[in-house]
Amino acid sequence: MGFVRVGIIGCGTVGTGTAKLLIQNADLIKKKTGIEFKLVKVADIDWERKREFEVPKELRTTDYKEVIDNSDVVVELVGGKTFAKKVILEALEAGKCVVTANKHLLAEEGKEIFEEAKKRNLFIGFEASVGGGIPVIKALREGLAGNKILNILGILNGTTNYILTRMFEENLDFETALKEAKEKGYAEADPSLDIDGWDAAHKIAILAMLAYGGYLDFNDVYVEGIRNVDKLDVELGKELGYTLKLLAIAKKVDSEVEVRVHPTFIHSEEALAKVSGVYNAVMIEGDFVGKTMFYGQGAGSHPTASAVVADVIDAGRFLLCSSKVLPPVNWEEGELKVRKNFYSRYYLRFDVPDKPGVLAKIANVLADYNISIASVLQKEMVCKIAGREGETIVPLVILTHKAFEEDIQNALKEIQKLPVVVDKPVLIRVEEEAY
Amino acid sequence: MGFVRVGIIGCGTVGTGTAKLLIQNADLIKKKTGIEFKLVKVADIDWERKREFEVPKELRTTDYKEVIDNSDVVVELVGGKTFAKKVILEALEAGKCVVTANKHLLAEEGKEIFEEAKKRNLFIGFEASVGGGIPVIKALREGLAGNKILNILGILNGTTNYILTRMFEENLDFETALKEAKEKGYAEADPSLDIDGWDAAHKIAILAMLAYGGYLDFNDVYVEGIRNVDKLDVELGKELGYTLKLLAIAKKVDSEVEVRVHPTFIHSEEALAKVSGVYNAVMIEGDFVGKTMFYGQGAGSHPTASAVVADVIDAGRFLLCSSKVLPPVNWEEGELKVRKNFYSRYYLRFDVPDKPGVLAKIANVLADYNISIASVLQKEMVCKIAGREGETIVPLVILTHKAFEEDIQNALKEIQKLPVVVDKPVLIRVEEEAY
Repeated sequence: MGFVRVGIIGCGTVGTGTAKLLIQNADLIKKKTGIEFKLVKVADIDWERKREFEVPKELRTTDYKEVIDNSDVVVELVGGKTFAKKVILEALEAGKCVVTANKHLLAEEGKEIFEEAKKRNLFIGFEASVGGGIPVIKALREGLAGNKILNILGILNGTTNYILTRMFEENLDFETALKEAKEKGYAEADPSLDIDGWDAAHKIAILAMLAYGGYLDFNDVYVEGIRNVDKLDVELGKELGYTLKLLAIAKKVDSEVEVRVHPTFIHSEEALAKVSGVYNAVMIEGDFVGKTMFYGQGAGSHPTASAVVADVIDAGRFLLCSSKVLPPVNWEEGELKVRKNFYSRYYLRFDVPDKPGVLAKIANVLADYNISIASVLQKEMVCKIAGREGETIVPLVILTHKAFEEDIQNALKEIQKLPVVVDKPVLIRVEEEAY
Repeated sequence: MGFVRVGIIGCGTVGTGTAKLLIQNADLIKKKTGIEFKLVKVADIDWERKREFEVPKELRTTDYKEVIDNSDVVVELVGGKTFAKKVILEALEAGKCVVTANKHLLAEEGKEIFEEAKKRNLFIGFEASVGGGIPVIKALREGLAGNKILNILGILNGTTNYILTRMFEENLDFETALKEAKEKGYAEADPSLDIDGWDAAHKIAILAMLAYGGYLDFNDVYVEGIRNVDKLDVELGKELGYTLKLLAIAKKVDSEVEVRVHPTFIHSEEALAKVSGVYNAVMIEGDFVGKTMFYGQGAGSHPTASAVVADVIDAGRFLLCSSKVLPPVNWEEGELKVRKNFYSRYYLRFDVPDKPGVLAKIANVLADYNISIASVLQKEMVCKIAGREGETIVPLVILTHKAFEEDIQNALKEIQKLPVVVDKPVLIRVEEEAY
């Protein structure tokens, strides 16, 4: 029977849930693993705050160093970058294994942390950094370890998925759906990290690094949120058989990887399209396993604690293994080359006067850029455009075949200059066969 | 850099896929794991047969003992019970780690095998025995290790899910859908293991043992297949908002477990209901993680090989770990007590003459057995019953609240004796909030 001391730094929502799980399920975990995991210290600067679970008084401290000194596994749950990084590096320097849920830090400065852990041959667990309780990091590192990973498509942010679900189902506009999300506690007072796509981008960056075995510069990740999504496009897409999702995408393309987050149309019949509300899901395609999907609660105190504790258990097994074999993870490829000129299908909407010759003009420009049109939808509906109230302006939707992002952007710049095109064109990427 | 010799016994569909994966992705696996996994021997009695991948001549043998002698990890893929068991036990006796996809053997005689592996402190991997390439065993053993598992609901057999999907979507009858499944290669010439529920039952027995930490007597598992599913009930269920699935269920109820496989209605809006065609999915509910779902191809050469190789890699890591810490699995609870008198909601269909007083008579019997009616649907449609052509016989559907299986069975026996009830009543269990 092994014995492992666990300490937590940062007792917010997830920290409290983790303490609760480690105490409440201690016997069960001992039975399952043959290892006794004992929570020895929990550090936080504020012990006055009301929490869902009362951490026993004798475990509380305000000094994070006390946690590091007394633990074999240090759980970092303070969040943010600066202090969290200091905590993790100090723990590693002290020879402790580390478990963290800090996607922000790992996505932007993971290299320094992973290199430090590797240098010291210490286990670092980060299951809780992506997809809450869904064991997707373990699936990538171990369950699918024999596969070359071809694609990862994820719905990795519950707030935006809730908003898009409501826009799709109830035809709400973005502001109304956001307001509703805030009222239900699904969106924070300042929701920008979520709705502008950064949270999902941090998560897909971590998955991409794991899947493709190298570090990437987070600045290379293309990030576009849902703030500017017009309900008209959600509606037109629905009519064409598509559901709009904020997809986080990682793909290997030759020697490069595409890593991007943006609103994306996927076929409404696909499994990912049916992931609704605050749920998260990750579709991973491997060369042997084909397409697999992992689904669950992507946030919240208890689900995230489940992931943290799974890592704590792995760290414990690692510590009891005298020859220290780390779980499969390969940073051998060095820096990943991120391809920015990605190759996708596109949904384009132009607001145009209902006159002959308009489509021809737009189609000509697309042809000049080698962009092939798959289908066209012109609706008999009138767009309300400020200053053009007298005219009949209609939405013209063009679905393209696969084209390069740069060509699309250049074509759109040119089309925008055409006198027939009122307002800025709308561009939404389309992912075929998401699942 | 570690070095692990791998041998395969049984080179059928999955064996061939496994050999292909180990050879084709050898470099990738070495990079990811830091371990070289070398396929050293493959045994089969027939090397004349055409295979999707040609196993190199120098690896082939017809003598399984040669595989055991020359490998560190022995992969058993012969299937069946007798010879497979002999192979596994001989490999363990020789001190080799074992990987197997043999659900039939593990479900019915797993105890002997797991005890032998435990006694010798050897790794035994069986990810491929459930859900093809979906890493669900790993999720239960490791990814969700901190959780008390409350429920497992699985669509674990692709053949039956294909048939039920076609019956639901196209209103086909069972025989037509089965014929179609055979034509598409989704059902075997003798499909009884699949359609009578045995395959799913083997799989849920394995998941139940893992989740609840004890062995169970496979004879205690309630198994009912889809052979007698009437398309009328699929249709009536659809109207009530339900989709019919062959669900494999494991639940902890007090100190007992329910382990059962039967056609089950679930709400059409739930994620499990949307798992269509030959895909598999497993929903696992834990006390902390909440509901998670794992989804993918539940069979086939390549997906299953992906699971086999994940186990081979785990076995390799285990072998290189001198202190030999096994992944969490707990058989400490001894024999699991299987509860047969389960507690569920029910869909009941009675074919009755369209006359006053019929519902009252049936409702009285149900009341006598403490079965509470949730809703009633009487359709204005005529059932064709042999010998009663002159009468207007209509289907009367009753959805009950939760009731005990024994009470339902006893009530049905009594109702069947009522002169107003033509034909045998139909009973289908209903699972609320499957996801």
